[in-house]
Amino acid sequence: MASVLILMGSTSDWPVMQAAARMLEDLGVQWEARVVSAHRTPDLLATTMQEAEQSDVRVVIAGAGGAAHLPGMLAAFTHLPVFGVPVPSKQLKGLDSLLSIVQMPKGVAVGTLAVGEAGAANAGLLAAQVIATTEPSVREKVIAFRHEQREKVLANSKLELN
Amino acid sequence: MASVLILMGSTSDWPVMQAAARMLEDLGVQWEARVVSAHRTPDLLATTMQEAEQSDVRVVIAGAGGAAHLPGMLAAFTHLPVFGVPVPSKQLKGLDSLLSIVQMPKGVAVGTLAVGEAGAANAGLLAAQVIATTEPSVREKVIAFRHEQREKVLANSKLELN
Amino acid sequence: MASVLILMGSTSDWPVMQAAARMLEDLGVQWEARVVSAHRTPDLLATTMQEAEQSDVRVVIAGAGGAAHLPGMLAAFTHLPVFGVPVPSKQLKGLDSLLSIVQMPKGVAVGTLAVGEAGAANAGLLAAQVIATTEPSVREKVIAFRHEQREKVLANSKLELN
Amino acid sequence: MASVLILMGSTSDWPVMQAAARMLEDLGVQWEARVVSAHRTPDLLATTMQEAEQSDVRVVIAGAGGAAHLPGMLAAFTHLPVFGVPVPSKQLKGLDSLLSIVQMPKGVAVGTLAVGEAGAANAGLLAAQVIATTEPSVREKVIAFRHEQREKVLANSKLELN
Amino acid sequence: MASVLILMGSTSDWPVMQAAARMLEDLGVQWEARVVSAHRTPDLLATTMQEAEQSDVRVVIAGAGGAAHLPGMLAAFTHLPVFGVPVPSKQLKGLDSLLSIVQMPKGVAVGTLAVGEAGAANAGLLAAQVIATTEPSVREKVIAFRHEQREKVLANSKLELN
Amino acid sequence: MASVLILMGSTSDWPVMQAAARMLEDLGVQWEARVVSAHRTPDLLATTMQEAEQSDVRVVIAGAGGAAHLPGMLAAFTHLPVFGVPVPSKQLKGLDSLLSIVQMPKGVAVGTLAVGEAGAANAGLLAAQVIATTEPSVREKVIAFRHEQREKVLANSKLELN
Amino acid sequence: MASVLILMGSTSDWPVMQAAARMLEDLGVQWEARVVSAHRTPDLLATTMQEAEQSDVRVVIAGAGGAAHLPGMLAAFTHLPVFGVPVPSKQLKGLDSLLSIVQMPKGVAVGTLAVGEAGAANAGLLAAQVIATTEPSVREKVIAFRHEQREKVLANSKLELN
Amino acid sequence: MASVLILMGSTSDWPVMQAAARMLEDLGVQWEARVVSAHRTPDLLATTMQEAEQSDVRVVIAGAGGAAHLPGMLAAFTHLPVFGVPVPSKQLKGLDSLLSIVQMPKGVAVGTLAVGEAGAANAGLLAAQVIATTEPSVREKVIAFRHEQREKVLANSKLELN
Repeated sequence: MASVLILMGSTSDWPVMQAAARMLEDLGVQWEARVVSAHRTPDLLATTMQEAEQSDVRVVIAGAGGAAHLPGMLAAFTHLPVFGVPVPSKQLKGLDSLLSIVQMPKGVAVGTLAVGEAGAANAGLLAAQVIATTEPSVREKVIAFRHEQREKVLANSKLELN
Repeated sequence: MASVLILMGSTSDWPVMQAAARMLEDLGVQWEARVVSAHRTPDLLATTMQEAEQSDVRVVIAGAGGAAHLPGMLAAFTHLPVFGVPVPSKQLKGLDSLLSIVQMPKGVAVGTLAVGEAGAANAGLLAAQVIATTEPSVREKVIAFRHEQREKVLANSKLELN
Repeated sequence: MASVLILMGSTSDWPVMQAAARMLEDLGVQWEARVVSAHRTPDLLATTMQEAEQSDVRVVIAGAGGAAHLPGMLAAFTHLPVFGVPVPSKQLKGLDSLLSIVQMPKGVAVGTLAVGEAGAANAGLLAAQVIATTEPSVREKVIAFRHEQREKVLANSKLELN
Repeated sequence: MASVLILMGSTSDWPVMQAAARMLEDLGVQWEARVVSAHRTPDLLATTMQEAEQSDVRVVIAGAGGAAHLPGMLAAFTHLPVFGVPVPSKQLKGLDSLLSIVQMPKGVAVGTLAVGEAGAANAGLLAAQVIATTEPSVREKVIAFRHEQREKVLANSKLELN
Repeated sequence: MASVLILMGSTSDWPVMQAAARMLEDLGVQWEARVVSAHRTPDLLATTMQEAEQSDVRVVIAGAGGAAHLPGMLAAFTHLPVFGVPVPSKQLKGLDSLLSIVQMPKGVAVGTLAVGEAGAANAGLLAAQVIATTEPSVREKVIAFRHEQREKVLANSKLELN
Repeated sequence: MASVLILMGSTSDWPVMQAAARMLEDLGVQWEARVVSAHRTPDLLATTMQEAEQSDVRVVIAGAGGAAHLPGMLAAFTHLPVFGVPVPSKQLKGLDSLLSIVQMPKGVAVGTLAVGEAGAANAGLLAAQVIATTEPSVREKVIAFRHEQREKVLANSKLELN
Repeated sequence: MASVLILMGSTSDWPVMQAAARMLEDLGVQWEARVVSAHRTPDLLATTMQEAEQSDVRVVIAGAGGAAHLPGMLAAFTHLPVFGVPVPSKQLKGLDSLLSIVQMPKGVAVGTLAVGEAGAANAGLLAAQVIATTEPSVREKVIAFRHEQREKVLANSKLELN
Repeated sequence: MASVLILMGSTSDWPVMQAAARMLEDLGVQWEARVVSAHRTPDLLATTMQEAEQSDVRVVIAGAGGAAHLPGMLAAFTHLPVFGVPVPSKQLKGLDSLLSIVQMPKGVAVGTLAVGEAGAANAGLLAAQVIATTEPSVREKVIAFRHEQREKVLANSKLELN
């Protein structure tokens, strides 16, 4: 397995969640993405986390929408750090997803990112930052990415009325 | 096991959840209450539901607060009907609990009751109503309970300024 | 009458609510759907519930939007279990529908499902689960449906970047 | 019966709702207050409204909390104008009560006031304003009440640091 | 002036607010609609209300969006009953409009209807119901309208899967 | 009149709003505070703003709660900058006050501060900052206040477990 | 530099924020707009504010969306008055932007305008009103703008059914 | 410096934030806690993060309330992973704090925990889990902590009516 395991409850979450994969790709971190559903394949939660712990996975990223139980349930089954991405829901716009992921009780933690694609990208970034604490090559890429972002802002900072 | 199994994530939920037990008691339905935590004892979810299915349990009631994953995860592990009670959370007053329980994805259902004690009592009532669909003695008690409620309103319907 | 009676306040709710009917159809449960409006035909609430109680109806499903009074009012007129589906409202996206249905006072219960089509489908599923507690043929279909869902996840679990 | 009929679902709503009675008292409008529960005495909704229509009642005021169905259901049974008062709920602070009362579908109207005691007082005031459109003596009292309010503000308009 | 005066802050509110006019038209109540802005023509608030009081206006309907001050400010300048319609806002979907209109302090009342077009139609209906308390011809039309609504539901009550 | 005029709808708002007065006092800016109610003394809005414009007032601060119309209505009557303070409401905790003040339509502006006492203090600070743009003595006091805040943080920056 | 400095976190905010520039343009106030990101160019916050203080800038306008930190951070680095514009966010519709900008702690103030384009325009207007307190030519233009708004309402005040 | 640096905007946040310190203490991870205010000491953000990067700090935990800018601003100045804790606010109960922290734009990430003390404790736990990915002694303590939690649930799982 790769350093970062990206999990989600449905293939329909992939358009949002692949922003995490792209960010990891850009930062030189290996990733693997799979569908595991808290509600439809609950028996796979424990085995997936055991497998992850026994391989090289260092961070788990999980995306889910609505009554979003996947990130918290994965966290319940592993000592690996889990980052959660609230996938926007059709009616309540992801507020339900956000609260279902972030409001974990004391003792089982999920580091939660923003609702939607920006949050997915940042889950990838945060996972890379965790890995960067011990891998200098990733750290350099994170620093370079930040530098690049800064340059883009500077290059387009003047604004005129259309 | 009893006809209704009441589960909750922590003994601290019991002051709210025992309203379900009291209602079942009043309606002549046998119940049993236990602590099973989605996050702290995730491995017990599957076994508890298997045990319930193999005994006389006909309805599962589950209460949880915050990122309330217990009702939905129990529903994922059983074909028994699951009713969920959002336990009030300290800061967000149970709005997080409510959304985490009710917004289940298509394919795994939780019948959700009101936030707090009224919801817990009604979970007991709804469970009794389910059992009443095939057990006349419970049906009579449900009807009597309704009648009694009506009488109480009628007995106190006149209001004067204090 | 069929085992499950599906009621809604307006034909405009049918595109959402027919997901309940489809789910019951798939699970081999007989259903019947009608328009009964809490606000426009309030006199039909009592008679519809009396008729249901005197026939073979075991579960009532009710969908409504906005100030959604239908599920709670039906529950007030019957001892049958009532499941409520919050139909999305135009402006407030179903948050009003959800709170109007779920926040019932102690003594009259509505088991509430998610906002919109997923909730309607799950109302059908939950009704089937109630019936399954005493009818083995429905129980088998519920179990098969769950199994099928699981298989679908497993069949599409690998994800690649587009 | 009096000109204004004040109804509420429970005697526990009376501490809030009696502000309506007091306001009517102050404005010289006769009132009567009763408990009628949408959920516990649903059969009384129709008869209470019939009785009101056949007597001198010109306005109905209804207070309710949580999934607050009373004002809307009364409005469904009468052509008299109905004003609704959202009684604060324990957990969600009356936001549920407000949305359950105000978001009525096209065709059955409830004029909704503020959550809590201020809303109850204003329901009384608005009822008096309706009656004042044809009864000069009430109109004079409404005008005098407004004048008095103005005078109170003017009398205490200077503020010093404590 | 007509019996009902419909005011709004901008011509852009008219597509929503004309539902009030249509309802009054259908119920045989004379109406007049004008733009008066609480923020852009604040000096017209007092004079418009004086003019209304001195003519045959019996009810004022006011629609506004966002920080919706028009209904409350009109109510401050008149003893006529004022009904408020929250016009949907672009970003917050009318929740801001609703709270700005309904949460009036004790002493100045606005009877608030639902957000958007349904609320506008119901403002017209409620105004007609107020007038109907003393004008039998309007009362008959209100009763007939209700009857017609009921008939429409009954005529389309059977539902089939598409 | 003083440089900053602090207005509020009721003496009951003064415990919150006097934080604005204290801040102005500390920053050497003259202030005057009065009760003017948008709803109970609407005729005073125009005259109070005319008086302010004709005196030395440079900034208006207005606090209000619930359907908080005072800041927006004052802004409608003056070209002076108006800063609004949402006073916490009993049930909805000031969310209604905030939205009623901040969501002003294009063309009439209110610079809105935080809900409650912190917002009132910051309204005083922001008013002082406006005056400081042309009065060096106030600017120096603002800078000194900021410096002092910084020093307080630095003096207490080490934290130990209790 | 111009009298008003308009800053935003990204060029993607410019379609919303240029409403501030247009308003200033109309009111004869010089402005300059730039991209400065709280998160991507945090080192520029201090220098941009120092530069502003040392030039003729009298007011800073800052727009940002989501976890909108730019207005508050700019306010932390300057004694100039800062007005914040919540840019609508994709999922939460700007409620997150609004709360992130307006709920500043005591001691650092941001005068916050409405979510979106209306708020941006009003930020320009409010900045002009601040400048107008000492520059009669701007004051006259503000008064003329208000007058023009009033005329537009008066010119279109009659409404007919479509 | 220690492995985990805990920062907050005010000593008043320490009663909440020390739950992070206690958790780290229990899990054998060295920590240091300091007050650094995004708004009152903005110049310290960059230097504090530089210092952290040049020492042994592997994770930064930041708590803040209201318009909570500290976690996001620290994240902007470092490549270390930052975890944010929404400290409850007086009026809006931490919903403002939560949205201000979690809704970060793409490119700068904050892993956000639950509102209040549970979130603070979980920030400590998540930081320990990050360190545990490379330090077996911490991993063992995390696993032991989880085991202990499980045992506590099992020891108190039977519930009786009071």
